[in-house]
Amino acid sequence: MNSQRFFNDKKNMLEVWLDEILPQNDPDVIPLLEAARYSTLAGGKRFRGAIVLSMADWLGESRSMLALAGGVEMIHAYSLIHDDLPAMDDDDLRRGKPTNHIIFGEATAILAGDFLLSEAHRLIIEGLRKEGFDPERILNVMSFLGEVLGAAGMVGGQEMDMRLTGRPINQAILEKIHQFKTGRFIEFSFVAPLILSRGIRSPEMTSDLGAFALKLGLLFQVVDDILDVTAEEDILGKPVGSDTENHKTTYVSLLGLEQAKHVAQNLEHELLQGLSSMKDTVLKAGLSQWVDQVAHRDR
Amino acid sequence: MNSQRFFNDKKNMLEVWLDEILPQNDPDVIPLLEAARYSTLAGGKRFRGAIVLSMADWLGESRSMLALAGGVEMIHAYSLIHDDLPAMDDDDLRRGKPTNHIIFGEATAILAGDFLLSEAHRLIIEGLRKEGFDPERILNVMSFLGEVLGAAGMVGGQEMDMRLTGRPINQAILEKIHQFKTGRFIEFSFVAPLILSRGIRSPEMTSDLGAFALKLGLLFQVVDDILDVTAEEDILGKPVGSDTENHKTTYVSLLGLEQAKHVAQNLEHELLQGLSSMKDTVLKAGLSQWVDQVAHRDR
Repeated sequence: MNSQRFFNDKKNMLEVWLDEILPQNDPDVIPLLEAARYSTLAGGKRFRGAIVLSMADWLGESRSMLALAGGVEMIHAYSLIHDDLPAMDDDDLRRGKPTNHIIFGEATAILAGDFLLSEAHRLIIEGLRKEGFDPERILNVMSFLGEVLGAAGMVGGQEMDMRLTGRPINQAILEKIHQFKTGRFIEFSFVAPLILSRGIRSPEMTSDLGAFALKLGLLFQVVDDILDVTAEEDILGKPVGSDTENHKTTYVSLLGLEQAKHVAQNLEHELLQGLSSMKDTVLKAGLSQWVDQVAHRDR
Repeated sequence: MNSQRFFNDKKNMLEVWLDEILPQNDPDVIPLLEAARYSTLAGGKRFRGAIVLSMADWLGESRSMLALAGGVEMIHAYSLIHDDLPAMDDDDLRRGKPTNHIIFGEATAILAGDFLLSEAHRLIIEGLRKEGFDPERILNVMSFLGEVLGAAGMVGGQEMDMRLTGRPINQAILEKIHQFKTGRFIEFSFVAPLILSRGIRSPEMTSDLGAFALKLGLLFQVVDDILDVTAEEDILGKPVGSDTENHKTTYVSLLGLEQAKHVAQNLEHELLQGLSSMKDTVLKAGLSQWVDQVAHRDR
C-alpha cells in the first residue's frame, strides 16, 4: 500500500468510528450533541489520530487503539472550538465552514468543547479496557494526557499565544508557544501507543520518539506558517494571509519566507538523520513517511 | 468531634492541599495559573470535596482520597468559571468576589477552566496511584467521572439550563436539569469513594448510595432556591433574588415559597427514612449528618 493510501485508510477508519460513537439521541441536549458532532466530523487532516493509528500498526496493534485515536481527534476538536471563540482568536471560518459558535452560539460552543474533552477521556479509557490493555499502562497514558493538555501544554500554549499576539517575540518564545500549544499533544499521539504497546520497549526509545515528535510538531508549524502565505485558499480551507491579519508572529513574519523555508528543510533533514540510528526497521520506515507527509503537504 | 467541626476539618484539609498542589511558578503562563488559583481557592462550601473526604473517613480510608476530593473541587471550580461567562449566565459576582472573567478577561477564564479540568484528571490519577489503589478501580472511577461530566451530566445540564432560562418548564424538566447539572456530580462524590474502597461492597450498596446522593442533590437545590429569596445577602455571598432577576425557573417560582419548603421537608424525611435500613452503622450515622447539613444550611 502506498503511503498516501495508508494514511487515507487511517483517516477513514477514524471518520467511521467518530460518526458511530458520538451520541445524538437525547432530545433534551440536542444542540450540544449536534455542536460536538459538527466540529468533530468537519473533516480536517486527522493528523493526530492518524499518528496514533499508524503507530499502532507499526507496533503490531492493528485496530486496538482506535478509541485512543478517536479520543485524540475529539480533544483536537475541543481545542479548535475554544480557540475560535470571539474571546480568543475570533475566527468565523475553519476548514472552509463557519466555526462552531457562528452556527450554535457561544454558550453551546463552549459547552460542546467541554463535553468533547470529558467524553474523550471516558471513551479512551473504556475503549482501551475493552481491548484488554494493562490498567497500569492505561493510567500512564491518561496521566500523560493530562500533562500535555495542561499549563505546560495545550492550554498554556494558547494562553501565551493570546497574550503575545501583536507583541514582538523572538524565535525561542515562538518555539515555546508551539511546543506547548501543538507539540506536546503531537508528542502524546506518537508516544502513547508506545506506552500502551504490549511489546517491551526501552526508556531510550520513548524519549527518542518524544524528541522526534516534538521536532516533527515544529516542522508541522513552520510548514503551516509557510502555507499561510503561499497556499491556494480553496485547498487550505481558510483565508490565506490570516496570520498577518491576526497580528500573529510566525516563522515567516520573524525570518522572512526564504529563511522559513530553510528552517523547514533543516528540520526535515535533522528528523531523517535522527531516524537513521533507529533499530526497529518497520517503525523507522513508517516515521520517515510521516516526515515526508508533514514536510511536503499542501494544506 | 461534633458534626460542624468534622466538616470544617475536611474543608481545611482541602484548602491546604489545593493551595499546595496548584502550580504558580511558570512565568510564561502566570495569568492562567493565577486565574486557576483565584477561583479554586476562592472559598465556598467545599461541599463536594467534603463529601469525598467524609465518605473516605467512614470507609476507613482516612486521608488517602485527598487527591480525589481536591480534584472534585477543581472540577467544580472549572464549572463555575465557565457558567459565569458572559456567553452563559453572565455573572459578575461569586461568593462575594468578582468572577474570574471580570478579573482575568474572558479568554484566560475559559482557558483556566479548561486547565482545571485536565489538571484535575491528572492529579486524581496520580494521587490515587500513589496511595496504592487498585488500577482497575481507579479506571472505574475515571470512567464514571467522564459520564457525570458529560451530556447526561454537568455539561448537558448547563446546556438545558441555558436554553430553557426564561421559558416555562414543569417540575419534571426542572428536576432533570438539576440532576444533570449538579446531581450526578454529587452522586460521583459519594459513590467514587465506595468504588475505590478496599473493603468489599455489594452492588446494592452502590446503587442505594447513588439514589441517596441524587436525592440529596435535589434537596441541596431546593434549599438553594429557598435561600435565594430568604437569606441574608452578606451570608449568601451573592445578591438575594438573583434567580428571579435572571429569569430562572426555581422551585420557589414554580411552586411558591411555602410549597417549596414543603418539598424540602419531604425530601429530608425520605432521605432519613431511606437510611434507616442501612446496615453499616458508621456510614448510616455519617450520611444522616449530611442530610442535616444540607437541609438546615443558611448559605
